[in-house]
Amino acid sequence: MTNQQKFSRLRKILDDASVYGRSIGKLNFDMQCCAPEEGMEQAGEDIAVLSKQLFRLTHSKTYARLVTELAADHEGLSPVQQKVVEHKNDAWQKGKNISAKLDYEMTLAYSRAYAKWLEAKKADDYSIFRDAFADLIGYTRKAIDLRDEKKATYYDACLDDYEKGGSIAQLDAFFGALKERIVPLLARIEKDGKPIRTDFMSRPCPIPQQEAFSKYLLELEGLRGSALVLMTTEHPFTTNFGPHDVRVTTHYYEENFVSNIFTTLHEGGHALFMQNEPEEFYREHAANSMSNAMHECISRFYENLIGRSEAFIHFIYPKLREITGDTFADVTERELYEAANVAQPGLIRCDADELTYCLHILIRYELEKAFVNGEITVDEIPALWNAKYKEYLGVDVPDDASGCLQDVHWSGSYGYFPSYALGSAYGAQILHTMQKELDVFGLAAKGDLLPIRDWLKEHVFSIASVSTPDEWIRAITGESLNVRYFLDYLEQKFSALYAL
Amino acid sequence: MTNQQKFSRLRKILDDASVYGRSIGKLNFDMQCCAPEEGMEQAGEDIAVLSKQLFRLTHSKTYARLVTELAADHEGLSPVQQKVVEHKNDAWQKGKNISAKLDYEMTLAYSRAYAKWLEAKKADDYSIFRDAFADLIGYTRKAIDLRDEKKATYYDACLDDYEKGGSIAQLDAFFGALKERIVPLLARIEKDGKPIRTDFMSRPCPIPQQEAFSKYLLELEGLRGSALVLMTTEHPFTTNFGPHDVRVTTHYYEENFVSNIFTTLHEGGHALFMQNEPEEFYREHAANSMSNAMHECISRFYENLIGRSEAFIHFIYPKLREITGDTFADVTERELYEAANVAQPGLIRCDADELTYCLHILIRYELEKAFVNGEITVDEIPALWNAKYKEYLGVDVPDDASGCLQDVHWSGSYGYFPSYALGSAYGAQILHTMQKELDVFGLAAKGDLLPIRDWLKEHVFSIASVSTPDEWIRAITGESLNVRYFLDYLEQKFSALYAL
Repeated sequence: MTNQQKFSRLRKILDDASVYGRSIGKLNFDMQCCAPEEGMEQAGEDIAVLSKQLFRLTHSKTYARLVTELAADHEGLSPVQQKVVEHKNDAWQKGKNISAKLDYEMTLAYSRAYAKWLEAKKADDYSIFRDAFADLIGYTRKAIDLRDEKKATYYDACLDDYEKGGSIAQLDAFFGALKERIVPLLARIEKDGKPIRTDFMSRPCPIPQQEAFSKYLLELEGLRGSALVLMTTEHPFTTNFGPHDVRVTTHYYEENFVSNIFTTLHEGGHALFMQNEPEEFYREHAANSMSNAMHECISRFYENLIGRSEAFIHFIYPKLREITGDTFADVTERELYEAANVAQPGLIRCDADELTYCLHILIRYELEKAFVNGEITVDEIPALWNAKYKEYLGVDVPDDASGCLQDVHWSGSYGYFPSYALGSAYGAQILHTMQKELDVFGLAAKGDLLPIRDWLKEHVFSIASVSTPDEWIRAITGESLNVRYFLDYLEQKFSALYAL
Repeated sequence: MTNQQKFSRLRKILDDASVYGRSIGKLNFDMQCCAPEEGMEQAGEDIAVLSKQLFRLTHSKTYARLVTELAADHEGLSPVQQKVVEHKNDAWQKGKNISAKLDYEMTLAYSRAYAKWLEAKKADDYSIFRDAFADLIGYTRKAIDLRDEKKATYYDACLDDYEKGGSIAQLDAFFGALKERIVPLLARIEKDGKPIRTDFMSRPCPIPQQEAFSKYLLELEGLRGSALVLMTTEHPFTTNFGPHDVRVTTHYYEENFVSNIFTTLHEGGHALFMQNEPEEFYREHAANSMSNAMHECISRFYENLIGRSEAFIHFIYPKLREITGDTFADVTERELYEAANVAQPGLIRCDADELTYCLHILIRYELEKAFVNGEITVDEIPALWNAKYKEYLGVDVPDDASGCLQDVHWSGSYGYFPSYALGSAYGAQILHTMQKELDVFGLAAKGDLLPIRDWLKEHVFSIASVSTPDEWIRAITGESLNVRYFLDYLEQKFSALYAL
């Protein structure tokens, strides 16, 4: 059998697996956007059955043989096919020593941890989550122990899983640089910053107005309407089932219109990535293999770098006034820009502004590094969380529900949080390069975002799923990740905004 | 192996098959209510893969052996289990001689016929549909030829498939009785009926008002909100994934508010049936085995017998006025009742009123009886359709799009249409019995529909899936289907309404 014939056999298995993957994805989507309360239990059971079938398809002897043989000898495969084999082999090597029994135990541990986290957050009682949390950390370490390839520490392995090549050494330097400039900048703002008017931010806007504006923004970003749906859900997310079926969800609050503008732009950024990977990636099962930081880079690019720019606010201001009647009649364009960018230390990551956001991530990074590597126990987390919020953000955490229980992530994964901060830094570096070729803010001021989408499609989306993060950012910008672009951007923007 | 052990093995297969059945159902629901245009093709392919797996599960040698052995000897099975075996064996016997190749050809023929029908209706060109239609009739006859058990004619077999025990002899008598009294009644209305005011029926109502009213009606019917969702779609339908996940869809038109009231009540009736079968039926895979006529009986019961009654209109009138502001300020309760019941021969079945509806069905019955049995060719259908509309309803059909191409049914099934008329007749007969125990319209006038739901649950829903239609209606009312109840009801109602 030639390598191309082997790849064809592998592709056939992956085709079948994709059917199950998409079906499970749609059942999940259905649970979040359609199904009634009483339907959840049955839906969960159905997903479990389909998942078992999916697991079988990608854990057969044939599958393992094809993947490992092609990884050892990929002559005759296209570059994209080689990358697919590399990714599948990586995943196979990481999981191959996990027995079906352990895999099943871990699945149960995840479900339990998620349920306990929900309960604990609702009851504001960390002790409810504690044991399931500790178990999950234990399973994470056990699964890493079973790998043939070893990393320096457990948390290094976690980081590498989410961001190939990532390590504590890299991220200590990265977050150190962030802390060094953001903390003093924030202190200067609090001490010397000019006051910013925000009284109008929570004025109620009817939801149909907000919905109309969301649709307008998604169109502006350059999303193909025939391959897009916009729906509502409790916790907004974006997902896709191939490039022709991309789904943005949002949550409208009558009194939170302005915030919804940026949620929509953010989710729309994810959607653009999903609609614009090369068709070949989908055909060969290479698509959707970008890192989370790459995805977050694009969503935050549209939310912050474009969306919260003075140029873009200038463009949408008349449309916003047109759609909202007299609601914002007394608000100037400049006031809207300033209010959309106000920097205000707070308790909740999801509500954080562009400047303080990375400090929320920093706190999570420092904590998960410590508890995954066994330097602290789960019992120490709440107090340490609160101390760090006081130290970096100057806020007092009143309870664990708005403290260390606020995010879902630790009920399932460790090493994910840094993606958000890395994404912001990638974005600023890419913007710097893009500006050499495009008048980015001139375009934003005209609402002409299509050249920006097309530039990203050509330089960013076209290689993400077949590159490591470092290969990717070097191919786009000519250098490895350099946090200076992001920090310079923040310093310039917020110094001007607050007249420092 | 004991029979109970055999049934346990069968149940296990049916459990697995149900997972695929529900998943396919949700993917279909997703296509109709969520997915974007470009996502349809992929979704169709995914459904085909899951369907193949479902087919495999219920066509294995083990499955066939369990079903046929238990059908031959069901000692030790519960009555419900016996019925399950009977249904599964019936289906098995009907399909067992259809080869995988023929089955695949038929699947393709169905898809093609549906696509051609859509195209033909859009283009108002029957010739586009003609060949695919003829092919489908051919396949229907071929599949019936392959059955061991023979019926008098092909169409008798079709009728028996949809309504166990149904036959041309039974339905000729049934439709003959309908024609004999409805046609002259309609003529009297047209000649001597008092005029009915309908000018307000198409006054625009904002969709949020309509949505609020739909939710109110569904609650009034006694549906459990935690096991129900209401969504919008192009062509309204109701579906379910077990009793805990029932989905009503509707389509709001600004200028068709009053009509949406009855669509909602109709779909809500289907939903009530789905929420209220015994749990045992679901556990043992007996549920959802009622005939279409039984289901249509309940939906039309709520739409017409309750919904269009003067008592119920009396109850909802103040609520309707409250929700719609001044829109209907000049309309009296009696005028609303009369307008909701106006009898007006028309072209389109879906828009037909309670009185003329059965004549639309009669026409379809006469035609499909003739073409399935080869008494007429597909080429004769358009002209015959038009002639019958002229004869029974007095209307001229201007084109095939609003003539014989209006309904989707003939692109997939023959023998289904009579269910609608049978359902109406069952409903009137059941109402007659119910009134001996409940003051039905006294309750409707108070908006207290729960005793009606509970009566149906006890007497109607509790046995439908394990009874033949004749067993069912006899158990509920003490006699076989007697069309007189329905005809008496129509004559009384419309004589009074039109002051004949």
